[in-house]
Amino acid sequence: MIGSTSICAQEERKDAQIIRQIYDQALKYPKAYEWLDFLCNQIGGRLSGSPQASAAVNYTQFIMDTLKADRVFLQEVKVPHWVRGKAEVAKIINSKKLGSQEVPVCALGNSVGTGKGGLRAQVVEVQNFEDLEKLGKSVIEGKIVFFNRPLDPTLVRTFEAYGGAVNQRFSGPSEAAKYGAVGCVVRSMTTALDDHPHTGSLGYQLNIPKIPAVAISTNGAELLSALLKDDAELQFYFETHCQMLEDADSHNVVGEIKGSEFPEEIIVVGGHLDAWDTGQGAHDDGAGCVQSLEVLRIFKALNIRPKRTVRIVMFMNEENGLRGGRKYAELAEENKENHLAAIESDAGGFTPRGIGVSLDKNTFEQIKKWQSLFDPYDIDIQEGGGGADIGPLRSQGTTTMSLRPDSQRYFDLHHAAIDTFDKVNQRELQLGAAAMTAMVYLLAEYGL
Amino acid sequence: MIGSTSICAQEERKDAQIIRQIYDQALKYPKAYEWLDFLCNQIGGRLSGSPQASAAVNYTQFIMDTLKADRVFLQEVKVPHWVRGKAEVAKIINSKKLGSQEVPVCALGNSVGTGKGGLRAQVVEVQNFEDLEKLGKSVIEGKIVFFNRPLDPTLVRTFEAYGGAVNQRFSGPSEAAKYGAVGCVVRSMTTALDDHPHTGSLGYQLNIPKIPAVAISTNGAELLSALLKDDAELQFYFETHCQMLEDADSHNVVGEIKGSEFPEEIIVVGGHLDAWDTGQGAHDDGAGCVQSLEVLRIFKALNIRPKRTVRIVMFMNEENGLRGGRKYAELAEENKENHLAAIESDAGGFTPRGIGVSLDKNTFEQIKKWQSLFDPYDIDIQEGGGGADIGPLRSQGTTTMSLRPDSQRYFDLHHAAIDTFDKVNQRELQLGAAAMTAMVYLLAEYGL
Repeated sequence: MIGSTSICAQEERKDAQIIRQIYDQALKYPKAYEWLDFLCNQIGGRLSGSPQASAAVNYTQFIMDTLKADRVFLQEVKVPHWVRGKAEVAKIINSKKLGSQEVPVCALGNSVGTGKGGLRAQVVEVQNFEDLEKLGKSVIEGKIVFFNRPLDPTLVRTFEAYGGAVNQRFSGPSEAAKYGAVGCVVRSMTTALDDHPHTGSLGYQLNIPKIPAVAISTNGAELLSALLKDDAELQFYFETHCQMLEDADSHNVVGEIKGSEFPEEIIVVGGHLDAWDTGQGAHDDGAGCVQSLEVLRIFKALNIRPKRTVRIVMFMNEENGLRGGRKYAELAEENKENHLAAIESDAGGFTPRGIGVSLDKNTFEQIKKWQSLFDPYDIDIQEGGGGADIGPLRSQGTTTMSLRPDSQRYFDLHHAAIDTFDKVNQRELQLGAAAMTAMVYLLAEYGL
Repeated sequence: MIGSTSICAQEERKDAQIIRQIYDQALKYPKAYEWLDFLCNQIGGRLSGSPQASAAVNYTQFIMDTLKADRVFLQEVKVPHWVRGKAEVAKIINSKKLGSQEVPVCALGNSVGTGKGGLRAQVVEVQNFEDLEKLGKSVIEGKIVFFNRPLDPTLVRTFEAYGGAVNQRFSGPSEAAKYGAVGCVVRSMTTALDDHPHTGSLGYQLNIPKIPAVAISTNGAELLSALLKDDAELQFYFETHCQMLEDADSHNVVGEIKGSEFPEEIIVVGGHLDAWDTGQGAHDDGAGCVQSLEVLRIFKALNIRPKRTVRIVMFMNEENGLRGGRKYAELAEENKENHLAAIESDAGGFTPRGIGVSLDKNTFEQIKKWQSLFDPYDIDIQEGGGGADIGPLRSQGTTTMSLRPDSQRYFDLHHAAIDTFDKVNQRELQLGAAAMTAMVYLLAEYGL
């Protein structure tokens, strides 16, 4: 739609004007920050199955109603219901009975607990699964495996560093259990050196004993590693009271603006409503939720009637099951809906630097042609994009996209107690909402 | 130097490797953050002429010595010596004697004080200098002029919003005095709505009465404006004890690595050492200073011997006089030095998004050819660049450049008590240092 004919030039001017209005609206009359304040400070951590998750469903449904979406509805989703229980305790115990030292840990999501009395054993430090194989059952059996491979600090985009380390957390416990480990301690997935343990889900493998697993703060990991060098016989103790309960009833929340010309073609924009219980889920992913609500508000405030249907979706259970994302795609298929594109914001509410676009179906080239419309806002349309919750739509041919904020501070907070409202900057949050609104507008106007 | 011949391709590969080493060094063995901790938490606000400014001169000279610069020297600079004195007080006083309300203010830098007893007068609110002209002497005489034009929130790059508002602070007091105003209150130069007053320098005009001037927090400005609407007769009271003393002795600090092939050609990289007394000068401009020191450290750590001379400069007195920058250029001219290029970091220690390059002498095109070397680090070489301290070098034909970090949070902190060390993120700071080091390396290697 951007070309050399005069109709195209006129369209481009009109689009540039509308996008300018979108940004003006986002920056002059911001609302997302206020909603985030409520989600964080009034509701708090919103793990699937918790009363807070239910409250967040009600609250965002209420916001969508207030904003006068054409249709607001809930999708029923059965979610895993994992609870942390009593606060975790962990100690490094000197083998020569010279005392012990407490270190900060938290149970990994989905982990079984040690229960009362805890778990105490010697420690084997490893960097990766190859180390497990080299050491073998004779060394590992009966011990606690300590995964201590740091995020690579030299990778400029921290998500790549996270991607290179997170298999320790997700698969480490079962991999260690294959060699007879009785427990698992994982270095927190952060680029910072500090005292905050970062939780996150593990995935137990079928027919492998489920061993209890915790994340240890990076300072704690450094200490444990240093002490092990001098005292290979030292023991680690931890006590966790987490458990997996029966699946619970929960919901995705969907708000819709009906398309005026092609209502059967759907554009999704969303984030996930659930958040770890340790913090407030401010950046992960309260930010993505309120930015998506802001898309709805801005469309309404500017009286933009999209040609295609726009759906704002609050997905449930991204953190420890992805049931909401799967359910959404399942219903889309059942109802024979046509999802052209889906954008997810789930990388924090920091200054947006780009929008990533999945590379299927040559849609990237079409979308990249809109680059000049985003240049005034320092937004770069980049190759590769998507999100956990919208991933299941891809098999239906949906183009998936992600908002890409600056990533330097994200893993400092991610899944930790310090992912709180005060860490979010209002302008940064709003700029992300504006970028998403602009992209949704273009997708709704021109399709793919 | 980047072309299609095999020599060029080899050079480009070598440069890419060296820049990768620079980033690895910056991200694996960061030092700038530690130095900044000292500058902020041990020394603190470093206004020209203060003991803290002297301590900062000594400290950074010491770091340069420790890093084994080929030559470390001080340049004597006479600086204005303005002191704030006793803490400011301000009140909005209801005209019907219904009481008064304290509001947060701080004296503008270089302002005269009210002295004991303070200043009390009615208030005229204006948006700009045209308003002053419209209202005229009959309305303004004997009153306090309140400049209340906010930074434009719709400008994505906040420096543009600052540029559009800061004439109220710098020139407002003299402009108001021309119409007989007795005092001046200026809305703080920030995009945030909060309770922190932001100082910054004013410039009194010759032969115009010097009236006392303060910055009021943005919440205070909103309140004052709202109350004025109901009570046009209300009075404002403020008491300030600031004064301008005799010029003081101070210094620029310079550390040099001698060029191996063209020692007479000089590349400067720097920031300014002075900082407002209200905060710690963490982002403004401790960050720029320690990033520049990091350039020296990284050259030494990687054993890079530059072909041209590299000078690390800590400029004194950017905030309220620019004497250091002027002195540096003056000495360069006196000594017939040839400064090819100068890079300044004075926009905060946030994630760098680009390097701006001044457009003279067609050097932009040459430098833009290096873009592909910066692509892996998400650094964009942009048109237009420079800095207050290196500005005076431009008349000598020097290409001036600036590190351009993300600007969303800068004016939240700028010149306020909250510009403190804890607001700086280590990775963001180091990425800026790495980008500057890479650019200095290329400039030293290839000249202009």
